[in-house]
Amino acid sequence: MPHSQPGLLSEAVYGLPEINREKIKSAKLVANPGCYPTSVLLAIAPLAKEDWANLDSIIADSKSGVSGAGRKASLGTHFGECNEAVSAYGLGTHRHTPEIEQHFSSLAGREIQVTFSPHLMPMTRGLLSTVYVDLKKSMDADELANHYRDYYRQEPFVRVLKTGTFANTHHVKHSNYCDIGVQVDSRTGRAIITSAIDNLIKGASGQAVQNMNLLRGFDETLGLDAPGLYP
Amino acid sequence: MPHSQPGLLSEAVYGLPEINREKIKSAKLVANPGCYPTSVLLAIAPLAKEDWANLDSIIADSKSGVSGAGRKASLGTHFGECNEAVSAYGLGTHRHTPEIEQHFSSLAGREIQVTFSPHLMPMTRGLLSTVYVDLKKSMDADELANHYRDYYRQEPFVRVLKTGTFANTHHVKHSNYCDIGVQVDSRTGRAIITSAIDNLIKGASGQAVQNMNLLRGFDETLGLDAPGLYP
Amino acid sequence: MPHSQPGLLSEAVYGLPEINREKIKSAKLVANPGCYPTSVLLAIAPLAKEDWANLDSIIADSKSGVSGAGRKASLGTHFGECNEAVSAYGLGTHRHTPEIEQHFSSLAGREIQVTFSPHLMPMTRGLLSTVYVDLKKSMDADELANHYRDYYRQEPFVRVLKTGTFANTHHVKHSNYCDIGVQVDSRTGRAIITSAIDNLIKGASGQAVQNMNLLRGFDETLGLDAPGLYP
Amino acid sequence: MPHSQPGLLSEAVYGLPEINREKIKSAKLVANPGCYPTSVLLAIAPLAKEDWANLDSIIADSKSGVSGAGRKASLGTHFGECNEAVSAYGLGTHRHTPEIEQHFSSLAGREIQVTFSPHLMPMTRGLLSTVYVDLKKSMDADELANHYRDYYRQEPFVRVLKTGTFANTHHVKHSNYCDIGVQVDSRTGRAIITSAIDNLIKGASGQAVQNMNLLRGFDETLGLDAPGLYP
Repeated sequence: MPHSQPGLLSEAVYGLPEINREKIKSAKLVANPGCYPTSVLLAIAPLAKEDWANLDSIIADSKSGVSGAGRKASLGTHFGECNEAVSAYGLGTHRHTPEIEQHFSSLAGREIQVTFSPHLMPMTRGLLSTVYVDLKKSMDADELANHYRDYYRQEPFVRVLKTGTFANTHHVKHSNYCDIGVQVDSRTGRAIITSAIDNLIKGASGQAVQNMNLLRGFDETLGLDAPGLYP
Repeated sequence: MPHSQPGLLSEAVYGLPEINREKIKSAKLVANPGCYPTSVLLAIAPLAKEDWANLDSIIADSKSGVSGAGRKASLGTHFGECNEAVSAYGLGTHRHTPEIEQHFSSLAGREIQVTFSPHLMPMTRGLLSTVYVDLKKSMDADELANHYRDYYRQEPFVRVLKTGTFANTHHVKHSNYCDIGVQVDSRTGRAIITSAIDNLIKGASGQAVQNMNLLRGFDETLGLDAPGLYP
Repeated sequence: MPHSQPGLLSEAVYGLPEINREKIKSAKLVANPGCYPTSVLLAIAPLAKEDWANLDSIIADSKSGVSGAGRKASLGTHFGECNEAVSAYGLGTHRHTPEIEQHFSSLAGREIQVTFSPHLMPMTRGLLSTVYVDLKKSMDADELANHYRDYYRQEPFVRVLKTGTFANTHHVKHSNYCDIGVQVDSRTGRAIITSAIDNLIKGASGQAVQNMNLLRGFDETLGLDAPGLYP
Repeated sequence: MPHSQPGLLSEAVYGLPEINREKIKSAKLVANPGCYPTSVLLAIAPLAKEDWANLDSIIADSKSGVSGAGRKASLGTHFGECNEAVSAYGLGTHRHTPEIEQHFSSLAGREIQVTFSPHLMPMTRGLLSTVYVDLKKSMDADELANHYRDYYRQEPFVRVLKTGTFANTHHVKHSNYCDIGVQVDSRTGRAIITSAIDNLIKGASGQAVQNMNLLRGFDETLGLDAPGLYP
């Protein structure tokens, strides 16, 4: 699909505040991230500069609620099709793969390719990504979790979970939070990072508000301080 | 947990007909497989003897309906907790990992370790596994699919899907089928295999009936020929 | 909407076996009932000849799964609209009201009008009708239940529930059964009858098979003996 | 069940602001209404003083999400039981019937009995009541709707819907609103009133906050101005 305004591409700043906050503040145009890239990039950003993670081994298995497909009527979003059904789609070809790779490569300082697999879940809102990365050195879950906590220490909307706890879309529903849980499978030497967002808030309009707050010099959390609603 | 009848272990045959049919026929005791191992083993069995797949790279990301947790009342299976929620659990520690490894190692002829990640889905029945394996040689999805079709050509309950189509739990619901879809992510050199079963049929009682049919010398599909009910 | 084949109207027999079995057997053309009329008519048929029920007081409050709206993509059947939503529609004007009235009037021997209120439920299959009727004489739930049991004693697909138990769509899912539970609110002098069917089986294709069996002289339950699948 | 503090009963004021606002303001103790009574009483309160409605004919058919049953683990709230299931329970005997009758009788100035039928829906939040009342004089839906609009004109949390539109739990989810839609079935002379609330907000904690605001002299809508979240 050709871009309708290619002249604007060079001006646009990628609006993921956790990796681009300063640029967003002075941007004239902000490109609001997709829901899948938000979820995957927040799960892997803390690994980009570390030489103990094999960045060529990243696999992101993502599970999205149906609202990710928009509100247009189609057979694919018909209640009778989606309800009581879990399915994979777009494996190896999904349009969000380049967005993930472009911005992670930029963080890592070299070109990285990832395997990204989207799945459709029988729920309205929520997006969970489970990301697998080979570790190059031995570490345990606490050590990895501490690294994530350090990385996100200043972030108002990222919560690194207690070790042994994994992300659940229900806990971030209707909020701008991204919950991240980490685990190390020491037998196979892999890190497993789970990240959960509400695809319509942190994955869409909530993040747009966060970006607007940054652009305008407002408090970054303005209008976004709801803790989520449960159940 | 100590086994209550360790003396019977040596007599028991693992009841996954697709890899153990002849032994089941003459068994005195059949161990009916768990739902997760059924789904994962059927996804990877065709790779066990092939030297073009790196068997040490296997990652299985599985998504199960709530009925996999049984009918006992608990907060974890309460409607208000499960509904509209997708979560990971037991990462790196789930009790089904050894069952998967034991039987896949037996097929491969050497000890193999896999990363297995179970997830809970907001639906009653169904189990989808998405399995990632590094390929050691270049191949496309058609080539891989043909290998799977050859491997399962005689199987009454395994359906290898058309290339470009991925497994969907909805299509096997209430049936004893396992649907398998294969893809190759040629950029990263990984195979992505999706397999879907009804966890209560092929993942439990349906497979038990299939085993009984084999044990008793009945037609293997007796009582199991329902095509599934949709929607 | 004008009927496209008005000439056939006089030949068609209404295919609700519980009230029309003999006519169906010799029919040339059978009109398969709608899901709502099946559910409501089975709930009230046993009252049609009784002078202890005020037939002018009938109110049917029906709750249908989304599959009742068909498989056509529309905003109204979009997952994001139907999921986690219960709503009323077509109150006072639904096209199934005349079908209910025509056939109940025929049973009662005089013209009867009913209030019929359809509702949309966040589930795929199933239809529950709760029907209210003023009683003209004092009776308790057991007495009313016994009357229903007598009325349906020969019916292979109607199950009158134990007193104190009410119909649940889950218990008839994927089956051709109609479950009926009765209650008497002795304080207000009203009978409350609940009836549950699978709208796609007894409310559609299952009933069509039952009618074909009758037409062809087959066993009425041929192909329909599945007890339903739970959960 | 005996009341544990009978001495406090005489001091307690029933906390439904739409019918009891002035008493709540000066109360020492407020009894927060149940979710079912809130939904039913708001649907019928405008009829209490009108001699064109037959108050002895009231039937309330209510449909509640599972959260109405609380968070305690039980088979009845197990996902596998509730999901894809619609059922009636407690017909003719539900403990909320006396609460409805007591407060409606108080409005009407004489003892009124109603038939109240609760149902369980496969969703987490939301409560829809469909209420039937015989009219003693001929009126159309617009006339009835105008009466409701007049009655609730000053209410911040009651929205009377456009004629021809009916209440939908999805539209009030996560809000303190009660939506009311009215219809007249002119053929049978009955009014059909639908009312929808979020059972955990207007049906529970939201209403408690509204009462506290009144008690403390705060703006009645303080902390409650969220419009609801959709989808």
